[in-house]
Amino acid sequence: MTVHELRPAFEQYNYVFGGREAQLAIRPGDIVELSTEDCFGGRVTSPAQKPSEVCDFNELNPVTGPIHVEGAEPGDLLAVHFIDIRPSRGHAISAAFPFFGALTSTHETATLQDPLEERVWFYDLDLDRWTASFRARNSDYALELPLDPMHGVVGVAPAGGEVRLVVTPSKHGGNMDTPEARTGTTLYLPVNVPGALLAIGDGHARQGEGEVIGTGLECAMDSVVAVDLVKGGAPDWPRLEDDMHIMTTGSVRPLEDAYRISQKELVDWTSDLTGMDALDAYQLVSQLGLAPAANVCDPNYTMIAKLPKWALREAEAYGGVHRRLRAAAEEYRTAR
Amino acid sequence: MTVHELRPAFEQYNYVFGGREAQLAIRPGDIVELSTEDCFGGRVTSPAQKPSEVCDFNELNPVTGPIHVEGAEPGDLLAVHFIDIRPSRGHAISAAFPFFGALTSTHETATLQDPLEERVWFYDLDLDRWTASFRARNSDYALELPLDPMHGVVGVAPAGGEVRLVVTPSKHGGNMDTPEARTGTTLYLPVNVPGALLAIGDGHARQGEGEVIGTGLECAMDSVVAVDLVKGGAPDWPRLEDDMHIMTTGSVRPLEDAYRISQKELVDWTSDLTGMDALDAYQLVSQLGLAPAANVCDPNYTMIAKLPKWALREAEAYGGVHRRLRAAAEEYRTAR
Amino acid sequence: MTVHELRPAFEQYNYVFGGREAQLAIRPGDIVELSTEDCFGGRVTSPAQKPSEVCDFNELNPVTGPIHVEGAEPGDLLAVHFIDIRPSRGHAISAAFPFFGALTSTHETATLQDPLEERVWFYDLDLDRWTASFRARNSDYALELPLDPMHGVVGVAPAGGEVRLVVTPSKHGGNMDTPEARTGTTLYLPVNVPGALLAIGDGHARQGEGEVIGTGLECAMDSVVAVDLVKGGAPDWPRLEDDMHIMTTGSVRPLEDAYRISQKELVDWTSDLTGMDALDAYQLVSQLGLAPAANVCDPNYTMIAKLPKWALREAEAYGGVHRRLRAAAEEYRTAR
Amino acid sequence: MTVHELRPAFEQYNYVFGGREAQLAIRPGDIVELSTEDCFGGRVTSPAQKPSEVCDFNELNPVTGPIHVEGAEPGDLLAVHFIDIRPSRGHAISAAFPFFGALTSTHETATLQDPLEERVWFYDLDLDRWTASFRARNSDYALELPLDPMHGVVGVAPAGGEVRLVVTPSKHGGNMDTPEARTGTTLYLPVNVPGALLAIGDGHARQGEGEVIGTGLECAMDSVVAVDLVKGGAPDWPRLEDDMHIMTTGSVRPLEDAYRISQKELVDWTSDLTGMDALDAYQLVSQLGLAPAANVCDPNYTMIAKLPKWALREAEAYGGVHRRLRAAAEEYRTAR
Repeated sequence: MTVHELRPAFEQYNYVFGGREAQLAIRPGDIVELSTEDCFGGRVTSPAQKPSEVCDFNELNPVTGPIHVEGAEPGDLLAVHFIDIRPSRGHAISAAFPFFGALTSTHETATLQDPLEERVWFYDLDLDRWTASFRARNSDYALELPLDPMHGVVGVAPAGGEVRLVVTPSKHGGNMDTPEARTGTTLYLPVNVPGALLAIGDGHARQGEGEVIGTGLECAMDSVVAVDLVKGGAPDWPRLEDDMHIMTTGSVRPLEDAYRISQKELVDWTSDLTGMDALDAYQLVSQLGLAPAANVCDPNYTMIAKLPKWALREAEAYGGVHRRLRAAAEEYRTAR
Repeated sequence: MTVHELRPAFEQYNYVFGGREAQLAIRPGDIVELSTEDCFGGRVTSPAQKPSEVCDFNELNPVTGPIHVEGAEPGDLLAVHFIDIRPSRGHAISAAFPFFGALTSTHETATLQDPLEERVWFYDLDLDRWTASFRARNSDYALELPLDPMHGVVGVAPAGGEVRLVVTPSKHGGNMDTPEARTGTTLYLPVNVPGALLAIGDGHARQGEGEVIGTGLECAMDSVVAVDLVKGGAPDWPRLEDDMHIMTTGSVRPLEDAYRISQKELVDWTSDLTGMDALDAYQLVSQLGLAPAANVCDPNYTMIAKLPKWALREAEAYGGVHRRLRAAAEEYRTAR
Repeated sequence: MTVHELRPAFEQYNYVFGGREAQLAIRPGDIVELSTEDCFGGRVTSPAQKPSEVCDFNELNPVTGPIHVEGAEPGDLLAVHFIDIRPSRGHAISAAFPFFGALTSTHETATLQDPLEERVWFYDLDLDRWTASFRARNSDYALELPLDPMHGVVGVAPAGGEVRLVVTPSKHGGNMDTPEARTGTTLYLPVNVPGALLAIGDGHARQGEGEVIGTGLECAMDSVVAVDLVKGGAPDWPRLEDDMHIMTTGSVRPLEDAYRISQKELVDWTSDLTGMDALDAYQLVSQLGLAPAANVCDPNYTMIAKLPKWALREAEAYGGVHRRLRAAAEEYRTAR
Repeated sequence: MTVHELRPAFEQYNYVFGGREAQLAIRPGDIVELSTEDCFGGRVTSPAQKPSEVCDFNELNPVTGPIHVEGAEPGDLLAVHFIDIRPSRGHAISAAFPFFGALTSTHETATLQDPLEERVWFYDLDLDRWTASFRARNSDYALELPLDPMHGVVGVAPAGGEVRLVVTPSKHGGNMDTPEARTGTTLYLPVNVPGALLAIGDGHARQGEGEVIGTGLECAMDSVVAVDLVKGGAPDWPRLEDDMHIMTTGSVRPLEDAYRISQKELVDWTSDLTGMDALDAYQLVSQLGLAPAANVCDPNYTMIAKLPKWALREAEAYGGVHRRLRAAAEEYRTAR
């Protein structure tokens, strides 16, 4: 088991997928310990600050990487297993950013109305009790929330030579903002360029489905991932797997098109894994599937489609790569 | 505890909300045992039949009712608690109906392509083991699915004198097709006309989130509901409550607008129940909320927004009507 | 040539399509002189008033009718030719209504933002010069606009026993709000119930494409229509024809679905009229078609698809009914 | 008057905006004579070929350029005036490309249906009569269409260091596919990088509004443009001006959001040019504006908003740059 470390200095963060030099080279099966900054690049240090005044919109969501994976070629599948995602500061930050989020007009859903108030919430994190403290800003309402850390941004270099701001999720991954990208989950990404060029960022100490206000509990993270490769296995869109479910994604607008893509992906995957034809798989997915929103605030919206793995009987996705990475994660934890 | 029975003959089913005479009059607090037909009106009796050939599109989803609730006035809230939803036939039926469902073009999302094959699945139901048997039509794949019965259609007469086909969900309820409308849940509807005129139908032995193929395990049901009234409490859109969550709905197109409505409703409700202002409630909902699709196939799409009730601390919705109806349900069950 | 008159008293206006008794019976080929109220029911009498305070949202857009057309049966086509549309007051009214219009959040596209200011504009009409005077409210900018009167609402009783508020356009017509419904144009509607039950309202002295603020130059009208019937010719969606173009409509959300419907209708119609198959007609429409927005503010959005009639060579729609109604209009004008 | 020539060899075409070296450097006020390839890169040479088999989807719409404009800095406005757009081959090509176009499911609007037939149409062009010959493939229907040449793709390097496939229109321009980009029109683009890096391609001999089948009369072109710069004048989204109208664009999904952006841009521009506040400008645009679709087939949809220039009274956009470029075009034509 080879374990790498990647802890970028501030000026080493990237804000795009594609077109950047690798900062680390690894081999399939390796493990990477990495640190990530929060979505604001650490620039928001007090609830009295306005994120819109201290942050440049084109420099939100700094990512750690890219990481070059030896042997990865276009058409392959990159498997990224989250061994650990752990807040590295004592607080997380959330904000109502002007003209961003689902319950406000935005630069894409443009109206003539005034923006909502720009309000910032600081959450104290208690890593022993694994909780975050919510405190209302305009009343004395307070609540302890369980942590459920995740990475909002995980992706690879896009196809076709494109370079995309990290804020936009698409086929290459990116800012999908799904709470499913948590410890114990494996994310599957298509490889579009030699080396794949994986990058990770935008940790959330927790986030609801849809990320309706546009931000989760934004937080710098110390994370550990195991990375593997399935030759020739590239999915059309990012997929996920945990111990209970296979999951597909669609990231596009409008939201029904994101839903359609995620569901078609799940039908296709179920058909592949069970040998059923598309229509029989469509029927089964329709009765057993779950369909939570991931984000309805980013430049593309993301929907998730989930199927319980017991519905697949004995079939295993991608030759059992999730199971093997799960075991590697156990081995890593034991070794520490 | 007054218990009524409503078991319509075939010709007594209705296909619209609004504009129909009440078939039963009850008082707040009463219980109704009722039978409902399946979405096809019982016309599909073999997997060899094509639903599109034996059913008239304007006579899908027959409903039982309407039921007149004494004292219900526009502006009131009608609470409908599902005490029991039990399949009354030995099988349930699902179908890929031509130009209906999320993974096909439809009459609203019109293309020039051919329809998908019209295929029908019959599921044997085992009420002892509480399972349904899925059998693929084009291969030998089979699977036992757990039952999770629900009503796809529950609603009242619309506002403004409108009469709507049951197939279209909107502010008055209707064909929301959410699996949350299950035993143990209370559905809250706005009263728009004197007596409310509640009607119920479209039972599903189970259904995935989004109902992507356009049908669940369609099934005639023997159901029991308890009905109550909260004077002056009418919500803008239907809401639900079970023991763990408060839930809101939005039923409109496109899907992001259904999402927006459901989330705004949940923000407003959370604000009402906690005393927080809208922006603080928006923040909390964003971090704790769930956002599953209900249907993405009907003339309006339905999204659900859910908040765990522990986030409300001691607050109870509508003066604890769900808790009281839960208790009445226990009393009813004990009495049988 | 039989000419009828229909001038409702205030309490005779209707606010729904369907479920109302006919106020006049005519025969195919007859002409009707009718008066219509403005969308506010005449309740707004000064720019200092707020329409939202003097109007009930469920009583906007009063319609004149319904008119029973002898011999009209479900499956027939009703042709309504606009012989004249003439403002009957010296002014027209427009307004930015709270949470209505395309550049504000609405009850369907819900946000937490404050509404825009509710502002009212009165336009003086000069019927000799055929102009309306625009005067900015917050500066001294003024402009004379040419009149181009139209009816925003024209429709028949819906199918399936539905009763719909006039504000919602759909397959039965209704509040399509297209400037194409002007003098010299024939509107084709499907007949859904015996007698068709035609109703007309919501005159605009003029309106831009899309009706972006949600109101045109709202105006009571004295209008004259000629009505005819084509047995068995019902289109799926309302269509229009003038001397230069055939036109189709789609009224649904989201806007791309309204576009898809209108374009598919135009492809189908072009195919019918030219004998080309669907794909060849699709090609021709793609190169010659026009695609203006009608409304992007009502509960359903309406798109128009237009094809120049020279592209049809010698073909005539519906056996030349537009040409005959045009001639009848000339005869009527000559006779007055 | 400095006139440049830019006639790329095949291997010099680009397929992205951003990240490419300039192929020509010019100064504001200069004129460029340039040649462009058709959207298929000239690979389709017979109607018997399938474009999907001879073309790589990531190499559609080759562009000529980029062109470096001296002195152009982020925040400036680049004005591109079309002096001439002239087909350079004797034929134009259109096609129904699999899973592309508005009346088929696509990779974004995903269904399980089969694609439409892939059919190709060749149009003979007659540059003397200025017509193109449409011939149906499956019947003997034929028609002469007037030419109305335009460029589907015109854009600059995007902001934020992004590199985008030319197929996707956005704030930097790109594949907007509007028939308004014709001879006599000036297109205004925001400058995002030093030198602007203008590129042009995707000529259509003509195209309907919406480009519903996904292709126009695709054609290699000999074009002439005059380029100018307005310091500090960058619009948020591309705008256009001809002798009769000012025009704005929005390119995003869903279509109603493209409409909202284009309309808000027109309201803002009208407000700037007339001194009216936003609400008064909103009112005027609502009554006088036109709202044609540009494309409803590309990865982002494009809507156009148009206002007749007489509504602006004496105001001139950007200090009269369109008028000056119009004069320069006359001078150029006279000089040839």
